[in-house]
Amino acid sequence: MPSPLRNGDTPLPAGAGGPPHRHQGRHFLSSVSEHKIRRLIALILLLRLAAFCFSLSAAIFMSTNSSRSPASPSWLHFHPFRFVFAANGIVAAYSLFEMGASIWEILKGATLLPESLQLWFDFSHDQVFAYILLSAEAAGLTEAQGKACAGAAESGGFCLQSYISVGLGFAGFAFLALSTLLSAYRVASYIITGSPFHF
Amino acid sequence: MPSPLRNGDTPLPAGAGGPPHRHQGRHFLSSVSEHKIRRLIALILLLRLAAFCFSLSAAIFMSTNSSRSPASPSWLHFHPFRFVFAANGIVAAYSLFEMGASIWEILKGATLLPESLQLWFDFSHDQVFAYILLSAEAAGLTEAQGKACAGAAESGGFCLQSYISVGLGFAGFAFLALSTLLSAYRVASYIITGSPFHF
Repeated sequence: MPSPLRNGDTPLPAGAGGPPHRHQGRHFLSSVSEHKIRRLIALILLLRLAAFCFSLSAAIFMSTNSSRSPASPSWLHFHPFRFVFAANGIVAAYSLFEMGASIWEILKGATLLPESLQLWFDFSHDQVFAYILLSAEAAGLTEAQGKACAGAAESGGFCLQSYISVGLGFAGFAFLALSTLLSAYRVASYIITGSPFHF
Repeated sequence: MPSPLRNGDTPLPAGAGGPPHRHQGRHFLSSVSEHKIRRLIALILLLRLAAFCFSLSAAIFMSTNSSRSPASPSWLHFHPFRFVFAANGIVAAYSLFEMGASIWEILKGATLLPESLQLWFDFSHDQVFAYILLSAEAAGLTEAQGKACAGAAESGGFCLQSYISVGLGFAGFAFLALSTLLSAYRVASYIITGSPFHF
């Protein structure tokens, strides 16, 4: 069922439909695209920054969740909380790397790794890390609602801090999931048109 | 950075590069594509079927996890297990609907809903349900490892059946995640080229 409207025939400015005007149309398109590409990379950078901030603070909140008093429970005793810490730490490190890659792309106009490798790397890691982070947060939330806070009126601070860490992690996941959408679009666009952005 | 290689110019058989041969090339492409499209829809149908089977059996395993003896615990007492049941039930129903839509597409050669609506519907629901199912399974696994099986030598069968249900749900998630990749590709291809499949 391929529709008769194909890529070369995407809406051009009026009168640029026929082959003689094609170059003019493409020039117009490419200057518009360049502007859009910069905006899209800036948007990706912003999402990465948000994911980095949230997951880093989730990891910090979780890892400092034991110093209150020697008697209070430590996050290290709860496997799901270790998972939350590890997943958030990995996502924070990955987001930092990706922010560097985006800034490089904005400054140099080319990807850090070879283009196809970079696009596949971004998409696959986004997708996998989003799944890992989400399952860590779901496990952490279940643990916080179950064992970790059961009959622990004395460890109210511990309980609250776990919830905050899990909540921050969920926010980090949301931004990671959004950047997964963009990197999926980029890789699909690269497969289909040979260019990472097509409008 | 749009590359000069655009969609209309994807590799054609030798000698079909110029405009006079374009129609011949497109005809060749379209007969190849039609074969590939059928194969891809069949693959999607297979993934849907697998997701349906696994999530349905996960839901059944979870919902029958209380009838052993009046004294043994019921899955209804554990919120994460209710979440596992609900998520698997939703995914099973959705997969059944999508299998119907795929079969319709194979038989009639057109999508059940209007094309763009169908593609967006598939992709968004795949993505969201995959996230929901994954977090349900992670929560269920944490509950099984924590409260549900704690000090329950007498409820060994209950514990085991919970694990089996969660495991089946994870398998259902894996197939749903794979079909998310395909539906993401379809929707991106539709945005970029106006056709849900482009090779």
